[in-house]
Amino acid sequence: MASKRVAVIGASGYGGLQTLRLLHDHPDLSVTFLGGERSSGKRWSELTPFLPLPGDPVVQNPDPDAIAAAADFAVLSLPNGLAAQLVPALLTRGVRVVDLSADYRYRSLQTWKEVYSSEALALNRGDEDLCAEAVYGLPEWEERRIRSARLVAAPGCFPTASLLGLLPLLKQGLIEPSGIVIDAKTGTSGGGRAAKEHLLLAEASEAIAPYGVVGHRHTSEIEQIASQVAGQPIQLQFTPHLVPMVRGLLATVYCRLRDPGLTADDCSTLIRTAYRDAPCVEVLPVGTYPSTKWVRQTNRALIGVQADTRTGQLIVMGAIDNLVKGQAGQGVQCLNLMAGLAATTGLPLLPFYP
Amino acid sequence: MASKRVAVIGASGYGGLQTLRLLHDHPDLSVTFLGGERSSGKRWSELTPFLPLPGDPVVQNPDPDAIAAAADFAVLSLPNGLAAQLVPALLTRGVRVVDLSADYRYRSLQTWKEVYSSEALALNRGDEDLCAEAVYGLPEWEERRIRSARLVAAPGCFPTASLLGLLPLLKQGLIEPSGIVIDAKTGTSGGGRAAKEHLLLAEASEAIAPYGVVGHRHTSEIEQIASQVAGQPIQLQFTPHLVPMVRGLLATVYCRLRDPGLTADDCSTLIRTAYRDAPCVEVLPVGTYPSTKWVRQTNRALIGVQADTRTGQLIVMGAIDNLVKGQAGQGVQCLNLMAGLAATTGLPLLPFYP
Amino acid sequence: MASKRVAVIGASGYGGLQTLRLLHDHPDLSVTFLGGERSSGKRWSELTPFLPLPGDPVVQNPDPDAIAAAADFAVLSLPNGLAAQLVPALLTRGVRVVDLSADYRYRSLQTWKEVYSSEALALNRGDEDLCAEAVYGLPEWEERRIRSARLVAAPGCFPTASLLGLLPLLKQGLIEPSGIVIDAKTGTSGGGRAAKEHLLLAEASEAIAPYGVVGHRHTSEIEQIASQVAGQPIQLQFTPHLVPMVRGLLATVYCRLRDPGLTADDCSTLIRTAYRDAPCVEVLPVGTYPSTKWVRQTNRALIGVQADTRTGQLIVMGAIDNLVKGQAGQGVQCLNLMAGLAATTGLPLLPFYP
Amino acid sequence: MASKRVAVIGASGYGGLQTLRLLHDHPDLSVTFLGGERSSGKRWSELTPFLPLPGDPVVQNPDPDAIAAAADFAVLSLPNGLAAQLVPALLTRGVRVVDLSADYRYRSLQTWKEVYSSEALALNRGDEDLCAEAVYGLPEWEERRIRSARLVAAPGCFPTASLLGLLPLLKQGLIEPSGIVIDAKTGTSGGGRAAKEHLLLAEASEAIAPYGVVGHRHTSEIEQIASQVAGQPIQLQFTPHLVPMVRGLLATVYCRLRDPGLTADDCSTLIRTAYRDAPCVEVLPVGTYPSTKWVRQTNRALIGVQADTRTGQLIVMGAIDNLVKGQAGQGVQCLNLMAGLAATTGLPLLPFYP
Repeated sequence: MASKRVAVIGASGYGGLQTLRLLHDHPDLSVTFLGGERSSGKRWSELTPFLPLPGDPVVQNPDPDAIAAAADFAVLSLPNGLAAQLVPALLTRGVRVVDLSADYRYRSLQTWKEVYSSEALALNRGDEDLCAEAVYGLPEWEERRIRSARLVAAPGCFPTASLLGLLPLLKQGLIEPSGIVIDAKTGTSGGGRAAKEHLLLAEASEAIAPYGVVGHRHTSEIEQIASQVAGQPIQLQFTPHLVPMVRGLLATVYCRLRDPGLTADDCSTLIRTAYRDAPCVEVLPVGTYPSTKWVRQTNRALIGVQADTRTGQLIVMGAIDNLVKGQAGQGVQCLNLMAGLAATTGLPLLPFYP
Repeated sequence: MASKRVAVIGASGYGGLQTLRLLHDHPDLSVTFLGGERSSGKRWSELTPFLPLPGDPVVQNPDPDAIAAAADFAVLSLPNGLAAQLVPALLTRGVRVVDLSADYRYRSLQTWKEVYSSEALALNRGDEDLCAEAVYGLPEWEERRIRSARLVAAPGCFPTASLLGLLPLLKQGLIEPSGIVIDAKTGTSGGGRAAKEHLLLAEASEAIAPYGVVGHRHTSEIEQIASQVAGQPIQLQFTPHLVPMVRGLLATVYCRLRDPGLTADDCSTLIRTAYRDAPCVEVLPVGTYPSTKWVRQTNRALIGVQADTRTGQLIVMGAIDNLVKGQAGQGVQCLNLMAGLAATTGLPLLPFYP
Repeated sequence: MASKRVAVIGASGYGGLQTLRLLHDHPDLSVTFLGGERSSGKRWSELTPFLPLPGDPVVQNPDPDAIAAAADFAVLSLPNGLAAQLVPALLTRGVRVVDLSADYRYRSLQTWKEVYSSEALALNRGDEDLCAEAVYGLPEWEERRIRSARLVAAPGCFPTASLLGLLPLLKQGLIEPSGIVIDAKTGTSGGGRAAKEHLLLAEASEAIAPYGVVGHRHTSEIEQIASQVAGQPIQLQFTPHLVPMVRGLLATVYCRLRDPGLTADDCSTLIRTAYRDAPCVEVLPVGTYPSTKWVRQTNRALIGVQADTRTGQLIVMGAIDNLVKGQAGQGVQCLNLMAGLAATTGLPLLPFYP
Repeated sequence: MASKRVAVIGASGYGGLQTLRLLHDHPDLSVTFLGGERSSGKRWSELTPFLPLPGDPVVQNPDPDAIAAAADFAVLSLPNGLAAQLVPALLTRGVRVVDLSADYRYRSLQTWKEVYSSEALALNRGDEDLCAEAVYGLPEWEERRIRSARLVAAPGCFPTASLLGLLPLLKQGLIEPSGIVIDAKTGTSGGGRAAKEHLLLAEASEAIAPYGVVGHRHTSEIEQIASQVAGQPIQLQFTPHLVPMVRGLLATVYCRLRDPGLTADDCSTLIRTAYRDAPCVEVLPVGTYPSTKWVRQTNRALIGVQADTRTGQLIVMGAIDNLVKGQAGQGVQCLNLMAGLAATTGLPLLPFYP
């Protein structure tokens, strides 16, 4: 089979870099267009001497016609609000899109505008139809729709780690829909590559701290999907923390069992069954708890489960690499499905430990 | 005023090292006996070239008579179960003791035996009376009793960070006593100085993972004190996580407000009022969240508060240095009170940032 | 082509783990025997839940007959002195060996005994012939001999990073053979997986320190190879430092140019030419300096060169991943050559950044 | 004695923060003016909630008249080139100055202009006289002149760690003046608090790399002082490396003994003797090598010495905290001398380990 042609737009941020690195090893997808605004006109090797690409391409202005001429698919790794400037033109030209930003994660444009109101450009959008059409790119839950989608919105990193454990429990009605607490922890690469004082090593090292307590944007994204799967509106508590490490994301989810007679093994079995055909999700034995180090630089999500018979609470832990299963890897997983390939094609699943 | 004489037993672990370092700068307390079993007979400078002590003392066998001859107070930094072998003999000889281990944190010896059953020596103890007599060394809540105590059990690091925020709320009945979730994060020095594979930099770096999910020993310690202050039995969820940093401990506590009309400012004010006379506790403005870096190498606890009006949940965050306010600094704070000094004498309260 | 069968002995240390991880993705080599003494009899998944191997093999006692029945090649990842207990029996049985320890890195058994005299078992060895026969497994310099070798001694991590830059210069006589200074820096995984106090995160983090100053064992290994290539005895200064990171090794080499008229570009070109056919070595443009992060989890060595026209000194910097090109990856590179494969088969060459 | 009044200008960078933190505990110096351009008009607690200052001062515009009205001394922590805009006006008004920048570290303005030509404002300066008058603030070598100085230029961090070990050897003529190699390693706080991509935790963590190879600005500063003490022009090799830690700086210095019969103990004794009256410098026993962790957050410099009888090389290792003895602590040490106090007044000398 001839290789499918992929454009990567926004190539020098972490999302773009990961996408390029993953596609470099991909047997059936090739990068045929490298786009970026700020780095337009520069040779790749000048920007990134440590990641040589075949032919040392020049970064190009992300012109829709040029992208459409060069590629069947586009992966967009752009700041929130910017992707939506480009997507309509790409779809019109027949380019199928995986967007790593938040621009198409909400079925309602109005909701997106409320959540992302602080972004420049947020207010000019009018593409309600594309918001409604876009598929939420969590392949374990939307595989069929992703396969035929024109536009896939890759989920946020926190939603991915939180939802994979929660959704089977909500779908089967095993847990109370209210009172759910998600305490999440992420490495600093989740904050992107642009220089910010609080992400300096001198500031972020030897420190752990919460941020965005109550009202972090990913709360609404998690609630949207959780509500949809549960079949009822869900409001939950989500608190992210910044951890002094480069990569890795852990969501520790607390919820109440509807039937206090259920054991951790029962719940673990249910979740394992739900992901029977999901090669990127693994449920650990009860008593083994996931470390982000076990999924570093892989597209795998590890889920651990424990229950407290005294309190009736279930603790569900989800670990991912925030830049792979939490971003670019999940994007490639979606791309694989859109291109008619097996979900894990070209994706690393085992870590190099330590 | 003549300096009070202090024995430090177990001097080469992190608890002992911190105690010695803090006492080195103390204006009114002097270390007059340095005890340790494994390092007995060695010069201090051989063991710890980087922390010269005046006179370069020789580490001595912790003989009760020798300790009593040399010191008015003893700080014990020994493995769980070992302190209880030494404490009765010290008290008999008139030495007042601050114990950094868990041996006297429970009012009931039976409870201690259940929780610490895996420790060697755990089963031989019969000192119910001392368990009942010992004062829980959280100075912000037991100052009066600590002042006159013969035996103070310094709290665990997780209980300290968790309880300081929770207790005022429980005492005033502002939160539901059930459903409390404590998601805690600690640096690796909390695991002590003895070499363990999972605490190697190569293993613990670039990783975050939960451990002791459901049933960690500090759960029962937290519940004991919380129940006592609330005036009713409390069972809660406590989950510790290992964070890739040396020092620092953050407890993120989730609880439900009894009156959903209460705001974060209301709760913040209540907690601030409770600690009006507590120089080691500071409540941050609502919207500012504590980083462990802000208390590194200090005896200060920072408390942050936020409320979610949608869910009625209150989030209380407590940050401490696990080896200072979470261990040796709190021990010295207790010692200060026992010696009739101001609580903060000789204790650092401001960090060297970054 | 049918897959070659490989035994991995000493599977739970970092060398063994890396070898298993690399061979897991290898198209032409399969692990058919998993050996270890302490973990003998245990299922792999119990030992290493995060790195599932096909068929979840049981770790076996490293019996030479069993190994020979199961495998064509063996990779030994054992403590110094232990490999030599096993190698003769394996060679006799027709198993070709890559040894990751130092046991066969010296052409003279006598030298080895002097350098490694502190190891248990060091004194009983009498296999001078095997020491003489063994090939030093630096594929960029011994490719032809490695292809046909029965026994390959994979180089140490420090020698690899130091020699790759130095050897072309010595061979061409561009630098003075005396006065060479190698200042090397390694991540803590170089100290192995066995728990040691100084490798704890709490001890090694937020610290850099030299160790083994004058007389570190790798000095003699570097000198042996440097002397051989230079055609004259070389004595040099080698100082390792422990860096607070998991993986990565940087050697900064200082030497004097024989002809002060030579530029950094001249030297860079010479080194680049020497490695024209070496796919795992890349020489950076003058002015770009190698970061260990650029080779993390790859089998690539990056070399940077700069010259000081004032002092006549040349600075040659070599960066590798100490566990891959510095250990297991180099072992697999040797295995590839021994099995008649391309040197880089199955080996990662590009990092996942950051 | 009444407290001396000190102005701190440039209060929100790391140099300013450290100075404020150190002066907070100082018994005889008080901060009476807080100056900054960007943060002018803001309350200190808004900028730095974690470091409460008495009275919560407002940051003021650094107007020379206002500074002179409020303070006897000024510590300037400003970008290179900016200090020289302010210093003449302060001196004229009778304010004695410790400048933490490089502006007055060279006796010749011309040299400074050559080295710092890339700085904005570099070319407008004409204060040759002040360059000639300024005292190099290395108190162990310039104590007498610092005591009476109007203007002290605190040394760079790399020069401090490099020179303390080198100078006694050069002064006594024990080492060859040519061929000296300084391989230095610093934590990332040395790069300052302004956000830069390469100092992000995601970029700098799990990495070590050289930078500024040949020609780093501190080379000329080291050479200037080394030449002066040696009484002959010295040119040496200086290579800094960025280490993944917040604080700490290690200089590993390689030099050749003039008399190969000299031992490490001889050299160690000579250096120890040189610093007999220097309370901030400690020479370790031969065989013990300094870790930056041993001086973290202290104003102490640790020096280790080892010799190689084979090669005739001496290795001198110097460890400091780059922000304390390498910057603000050294500034306060100078201030102490200028104010007629003991050198170590108010300065921490022992670390909180780990």
